[in-house]
Amino acid sequence: MRTAAAVVLCSHWKCGRILRRWRSSASCTALCVPKFLTSPARVLCLCPKDSTVSPEPSLPKILETRHKPLLKTPKGMNDVEPWNVALRQRILSTIIACFERHGGQRMDTSTLERRDVLTERYGDESKLMYHLEDQGGERLSLRYDLTVPFARYLAMYNPGRLRRYQLGAVYRREQPSASNARLRQFMQADFDIAGNFTPMGPEAECVRIMHEIFSELSLGDFVIKVSDRRLLQAIVALYGQPSNTHCGVCATIDKLQKNGWPAVKEELVQRHGMPSDSADRLGEMIIQKGGEEVLQKLIVDPNLQGEKAQKSIHDLQLLFSYLRILGVSNKVKLDLSLARGVDYYTGVVFEAEISDSRDKVGSVAGGGRYDDLVAELHPKGKQYPCVGLSIGVDRLVMLAAQVEPVMLQKSITEVVVASAEKGFLEERMHLLAHLWDSGIKAEMMWDKDPSLLRQLQWCEKHGVPLVVIIGSREQATGVVGLRNIALRHQEDVPLVDIVAEVKKRLQQT
Amino acid sequence: MRTAAAVVLCSHWKCGRILRRWRSSASCTALCVPKFLTSPARVLCLCPKDSTVSPEPSLPKILETRHKPLLKTPKGMNDVEPWNVALRQRILSTIIACFERHGGQRMDTSTLERRDVLTERYGDESKLMYHLEDQGGERLSLRYDLTVPFARYLAMYNPGRLRRYQLGAVYRREQPSASNARLRQFMQADFDIAGNFTPMGPEAECVRIMHEIFSELSLGDFVIKVSDRRLLQAIVALYGQPSNTHCGVCATIDKLQKNGWPAVKEELVQRHGMPSDSADRLGEMIIQKGGEEVLQKLIVDPNLQGEKAQKSIHDLQLLFSYLRILGVSNKVKLDLSLARGVDYYTGVVFEAEISDSRDKVGSVAGGGRYDDLVAELHPKGKQYPCVGLSIGVDRLVMLAAQVEPVMLQKSITEVVVASAEKGFLEERMHLLAHLWDSGIKAEMMWDKDPSLLRQLQWCEKHGVPLVVIIGSREQATGVVGLRNIALRHQEDVPLVDIVAEVKKRLQQT
Repeated sequence: MRTAAAVVLCSHWKCGRILRRWRSSASCTALCVPKFLTSPARVLCLCPKDSTVSPEPSLPKILETRHKPLLKTPKGMNDVEPWNVALRQRILSTIIACFERHGGQRMDTSTLERRDVLTERYGDESKLMYHLEDQGGERLSLRYDLTVPFARYLAMYNPGRLRRYQLGAVYRREQPSASNARLRQFMQADFDIAGNFTPMGPEAECVRIMHEIFSELSLGDFVIKVSDRRLLQAIVALYGQPSNTHCGVCATIDKLQKNGWPAVKEELVQRHGMPSDSADRLGEMIIQKGGEEVLQKLIVDPNLQGEKAQKSIHDLQLLFSYLRILGVSNKVKLDLSLARGVDYYTGVVFEAEISDSRDKVGSVAGGGRYDDLVAELHPKGKQYPCVGLSIGVDRLVMLAAQVEPVMLQKSITEVVVASAEKGFLEERMHLLAHLWDSGIKAEMMWDKDPSLLRQLQWCEKHGVPLVVIIGSREQATGVVGLRNIALRHQEDVPLVDIVAEVKKRLQQT
Repeated sequence: MRTAAAVVLCSHWKCGRILRRWRSSASCTALCVPKFLTSPARVLCLCPKDSTVSPEPSLPKILETRHKPLLKTPKGMNDVEPWNVALRQRILSTIIACFERHGGQRMDTSTLERRDVLTERYGDESKLMYHLEDQGGERLSLRYDLTVPFARYLAMYNPGRLRRYQLGAVYRREQPSASNARLRQFMQADFDIAGNFTPMGPEAECVRIMHEIFSELSLGDFVIKVSDRRLLQAIVALYGQPSNTHCGVCATIDKLQKNGWPAVKEELVQRHGMPSDSADRLGEMIIQKGGEEVLQKLIVDPNLQGEKAQKSIHDLQLLFSYLRILGVSNKVKLDLSLARGVDYYTGVVFEAEISDSRDKVGSVAGGGRYDDLVAELHPKGKQYPCVGLSIGVDRLVMLAAQVEPVMLQKSITEVVVASAEKGFLEERMHLLAHLWDSGIKAEMMWDKDPSLLRQLQWCEKHGVPLVVIIGSREQATGVVGLRNIALRHQEDVPLVDIVAEVKKRLQQT
């Protein structure tokens, strides 16, 4: 009998105190309840070296008191159940078809990025990033959007002109409130055009892409708001703000729709040090919205005669003329309070909003031009002009779930192979393999003796259209029963014809 | 002129020392080189409150000496470029079609899980898990596989019998070596059957699913190895190992193919305290492999007459008979050294290997029965028998890239709208919008004055089949040129017929 002298340590990372020492051949177990825990921690037993066997100390073994984990998904993250996947797939296929109609090539990047690639790209929002623990090696974070990873890709590989699209989850430590069910993991669908092109061409195409997708999805009335960071910054500069604060001020202005003017004004005054009356005049300036007539007013505004502002207004006029040619100007609106939250935008920005069945308006897509982002990451600062858009897929799924009735747990199986009496397991398996070989979506209940009634009820509940039934009568006469669940109609079909018959019935349903 | 007294702190989390204090109206910047860093750290400037403007201390602002991040993807994680996506999509569609043929319902879980759900499920391998930093709130980790999240889902929702499939990335901190390009983020495709069924039925279906997929993909000759944890544990028990070490011993045995017998024997002796001659006899036992004849030998082995071993051997015999009925026994082989690394398997385990074009064999899928996993997570220990398989999608993509020639950067665009002379930007846009409206995958170069030669060369390089050409001659006569790039053949088509003509040509190519 081997004896073991064991030091038992609490394995909780904040605790780690020695609980007891003892000599025993029994497996050692102990319990520690550090004050900061609501449930007892697991315990780590450091076994001593067995000098007769092992020259080195043996590895620590965890002999824990099996405590159950708290059974939930992480805050703000949901399981996507089958009915939700089906809805999501339909929305994604519309988006993908549109992206590919516009020559998009699909790409993917890893969920994780080196932290230094991500920090400093998002301004204030970067505090919402998820960081990974330092486990040795690189410091990593979860991607916050798909745009910075794409810029990192462009800086690394310099692939020339590129239209790429990407679908993937992004991660933000948002604070969910009672009123908004903000997710902390959500899917974005991004389309970007990278390269040097004629002004406003790629911007117009991005707006057209959003217009095509939201028209086709028919989830509610939508509007695409357009603005320009350069114009907004020229306006902000009118009120004495130094240029290095412009990104921060833009991020503040962007909260106008969400938080309202009083909150925005307070932030402008308190945080950015803007005098109260300047903030008010800024407020009057940025609530301007409408069509091209607003641009005509702005272009003659004596305060906006600087080169940057004039260029920006001219570009917006050009954009509107292109949108008319592309047939999508009907849904587009100039909105000077649109700024977009993150730091990297440098020109035109846009955002699409859909009004849902309860007339609540929500942002479902956004984007803009970010000409300097690649240069920020490139070792030699290579300029790589880009414009792109992100679609919030989860919001669209939520909207779609409101619009259309949801089929819960509907099976995609076409045929169930059932038996009319006990046994017939192997006969069902033979038949099932035959159906699979012919590409039919088939299933059987892997029970030894399922009752026929139970098998039929299961099909009814899960919406399986056809059942093939085998039993001793059928086996003797070389036929099988073929039952249409909806019609409750059953007939005998020769076993040799069963695949052809099933395919014929499936085409009819 | 405002003056600012600034404290400049190194922003590196390990450093944080005060670098200097000064008063200056210029933007403050400083550089810190902590010893543990190879490149200078960014610097954080804590600006003092400006009492004339802001009553509270203003927020810290980062005024960094713009250091470029190291431009690379995280270790063991790759960008998936367009050609790779295309290959991957083709493989995924084969897998999805098979999973749906077997009644699988698609599901998804979040990439992150609460850490207490994941720890203790993987035995030794859990040291490879990625943990998230403690940023307040829950302690999270990246999922290590798709099986434990599925078990967590079953324990939470108790959905009854379920066949689900899931595609998603999993994360493991593997050590890549020169010889193996192990990825740290890779995609798994999982199919699982949850619920209580007749013995070996679902196991047989899982093996059939792997057989269907690897037959259809035709990436090389494959074999499906089958074993049973219960049998292996009965064998291990013969050599005096206490039952709580069986999982660890199984994990060691599983390394046989990768590390060879001497390494496995050393681990058995050094770590699990097995006498050297026992280890040798165990080694002779587990190298047995073959077909049903091995089972016939085992069932009469005087050492394996215990209830557990006999049940396991009988089950394996039943499995082989089912596999014969399902027509897939030709590729299945019993291999007692197959144990699978993770702790949660409780019965039959399987693993598929493909020999590639250079005759190197690699594991591409695996799985087995895990009857206790849900109970470990469920608060009341509810039993939920499950069996399932995981396919390593990235390995299949690598194999496929060896087998078939890869089309680099081929565009999916069907038509490019080009102009024969300078300008014609708006005319091209009109035509482009018309093609998009008709669902044609169309593109134009967003240049003001692209040369026709450059536009045609671009199409040739990227494999775009058709070009529509517009210029002043075409505009005057109401026609456009329609050019087939491969044939270098061009003809005039009336503008009103262009959509119909393009569609006709696309069907021909």
